[in-house]
Amino acid sequence: MLHHTLKISFVAAACGLAFAATANAEEVTTERHKAEITTVAEGLNFPWGLAFLPNGDALITEKSGTLRRVTMAGEVGDAISGVPDVVYKSQGGLLDVALDPNFADNQWVYLSYSEADPEGGDGNSTAVARGKLEGDALTNVKVIFRGAPKYESGAHFGSRLVFSPEGYLFVTLGDRYSAMDDAQTLDNHHGKVVRIWPDGSVPEDNPFVGQADALPEIWSYGHRNVQGAAIHPETGKLWTVEHGPKGGDEINIPEAGANYGWPVATYGVDYDGSIISDKTHVEGTVQPHYYWVPSIATSNMIFYTGDQFPAWQGDVFVGALRGTHVARLDLHGDRVMHEEPLFKDAIGQRVRDIEQGPDGAIYVVIDDRNGSLIRISNADD
Amino acid sequence: MLHHTLKISFVAAACGLAFAATANAEEVTTERHKAEITTVAEGLNFPWGLAFLPNGDALITEKSGTLRRVTMAGEVGDAISGVPDVVYKSQGGLLDVALDPNFADNQWVYLSYSEADPEGGDGNSTAVARGKLEGDALTNVKVIFRGAPKYESGAHFGSRLVFSPEGYLFVTLGDRYSAMDDAQTLDNHHGKVVRIWPDGSVPEDNPFVGQADALPEIWSYGHRNVQGAAIHPETGKLWTVEHGPKGGDEINIPEAGANYGWPVATYGVDYDGSIISDKTHVEGTVQPHYYWVPSIATSNMIFYTGDQFPAWQGDVFVGALRGTHVARLDLHGDRVMHEEPLFKDAIGQRVRDIEQGPDGAIYVVIDDRNGSLIRISNADD
Repeated sequence: MLHHTLKISFVAAACGLAFAATANAEEVTTERHKAEITTVAEGLNFPWGLAFLPNGDALITEKSGTLRRVTMAGEVGDAISGVPDVVYKSQGGLLDVALDPNFADNQWVYLSYSEADPEGGDGNSTAVARGKLEGDALTNVKVIFRGAPKYESGAHFGSRLVFSPEGYLFVTLGDRYSAMDDAQTLDNHHGKVVRIWPDGSVPEDNPFVGQADALPEIWSYGHRNVQGAAIHPETGKLWTVEHGPKGGDEINIPEAGANYGWPVATYGVDYDGSIISDKTHVEGTVQPHYYWVPSIATSNMIFYTGDQFPAWQGDVFVGALRGTHVARLDLHGDRVMHEEPLFKDAIGQRVRDIEQGPDGAIYVVIDDRNGSLIRISNADD
Repeated sequence: MLHHTLKISFVAAACGLAFAATANAEEVTTERHKAEITTVAEGLNFPWGLAFLPNGDALITEKSGTLRRVTMAGEVGDAISGVPDVVYKSQGGLLDVALDPNFADNQWVYLSYSEADPEGGDGNSTAVARGKLEGDALTNVKVIFRGAPKYESGAHFGSRLVFSPEGYLFVTLGDRYSAMDDAQTLDNHHGKVVRIWPDGSVPEDNPFVGQADALPEIWSYGHRNVQGAAIHPETGKLWTVEHGPKGGDEINIPEAGANYGWPVATYGVDYDGSIISDKTHVEGTVQPHYYWVPSIATSNMIFYTGDQFPAWQGDVFVGALRGTHVARLDLHGDRVMHEEPLFKDAIGQRVRDIEQGPDGAIYVVIDDRNGSLIRISNADD
């Protein structure tokens, strides 16, 4: 199956956009760089997660349960076999994909997805499986994490996968929406960030190991629906970004054992007209590092570390679903000094994942029935 | 002279604005509070500085050189006598007004203004004088600070006056535009924040006291045009806000002896098409604490500490001239977590000063030939 189309987008010159020579590329002037927006591949069915292979190809999940290899020439490969069955329902399905830090040696690929109750109940939960990528097949597939409890809902599964420099695997989870109160208790995985070893075992120094009525995988709690995560390239710390209810999308720097407040404290204003909480500050909960009101609907985040955009090095880029743009946060240390909303005119579609490519360009995948992979590359004079 | 007019502003309901019972009041729903915007007084000729007297009246400067008492009933008093002559030209004139922290005992009022060369030259500079307010007169008027050198320009005078908890008087200055390079050298007051005692004497522990070729009043340098300043209510530290060239309006937390980079480092993109500096980071200069691109044209700033708006306590409010709005920065400690632009529809005019009133309302003055004093008070249900 090949998709390789040319697209010319006409945007009012009043927006400060110009056209580059390439037919399907569009040039955008930003505060610090000119960028070229190119559609690399189309025809992806609600793509969710993106990871780059050592050879420069991308692995992309489709929510319906398919994992595909996509080349930078726009070739979309057939379904890779061995992917676990998923519950494809509302926000659920095949979600994130990540490579093992030692992928070149061990070929492990990690997938997060919504998994049915293996005992036949109506519930589901976020699970993580890994398998060895051999050609177009995943082999030795094993489930390494299963969210508890299984719960009947089609919403708020999380779930981003990110490895720390020490080799821990962080899995970000959601509160399953109607189970939001569970985010404040430790006997379940709803509204948690969990930390495991790549084989699924629990690190002995996890904050709640040995605590009665607490699940040992839990790293932090009081989250709503965390769909973005990245490791700060200098501090090595985990940063996450989560969806707020209506307003109150949050960046956090989750510390071991800390409570990020949901649903007792939130900057979300209301949802369907009802107040979730009028409290933004609650004793024992951590304030967000940064937040958005109104919500831009944050998907994933990266710290940019490439050579293509020198003035963006160290900056955070956040994909926005509702916002249909990418938010750049200029950091000094951990502090956000400035936010620049980018590419709403040039992209203007729901940004579901954002990753840095091996070439130092930034790539996003678009959440759509005819979803695409888009490259943001340097077009400075 | 009395100005007391009623004004009804009609703004599209689509903007989410409603009208309160009072004829000249307008209700605005913000993220955390409802606010009522009321025009207190009109007919002010390019008002610049605002300070509240213990009895609740306001002192307001007009750039042409007049200081007036304005009551909360909207009565605008006659010119207070004793104000020094000012150079009323372009951005120059009578600028800020501040009361001595011990005003109730000593009646000292401080004024910043552009002062002609006393020796008859064509230059001018920012000066600060103080006088005792007795009825409608300033007496015992004395110049306590004179910017050096006198320089022929109508631009970038600063100049906000703010007292630290220890009783120091900070005076924020501008680079005089065409003398911008002076901001990097210490033998002049261009582009500096200075710290003096209220009688004009120099604190012995100022950072450059005793240093050859450095003026002893200097506290910090490398500023462009600092028109806003406030003391953080918990840390007691000075915060300032300054105009960038085109983009790059900055909040800084000026430390003794530190260099804030102008004009060698700036987030301003360009000005009249020419690049000022393509450098945002230069060794030996301090990054801004927060910045705006594009410029909103920052005038003054406050930390809100009143009882009227509990959810705003500790937040920074910045007046915007070009932006014709007020920016609220939600702080956690020193960190900006979120920015909310406020009142652009309800105010929509150049905000020249912003202060907290003794009643806990927020007041702004509008930079216009028919300038006004506007109250922002709580209208929560």
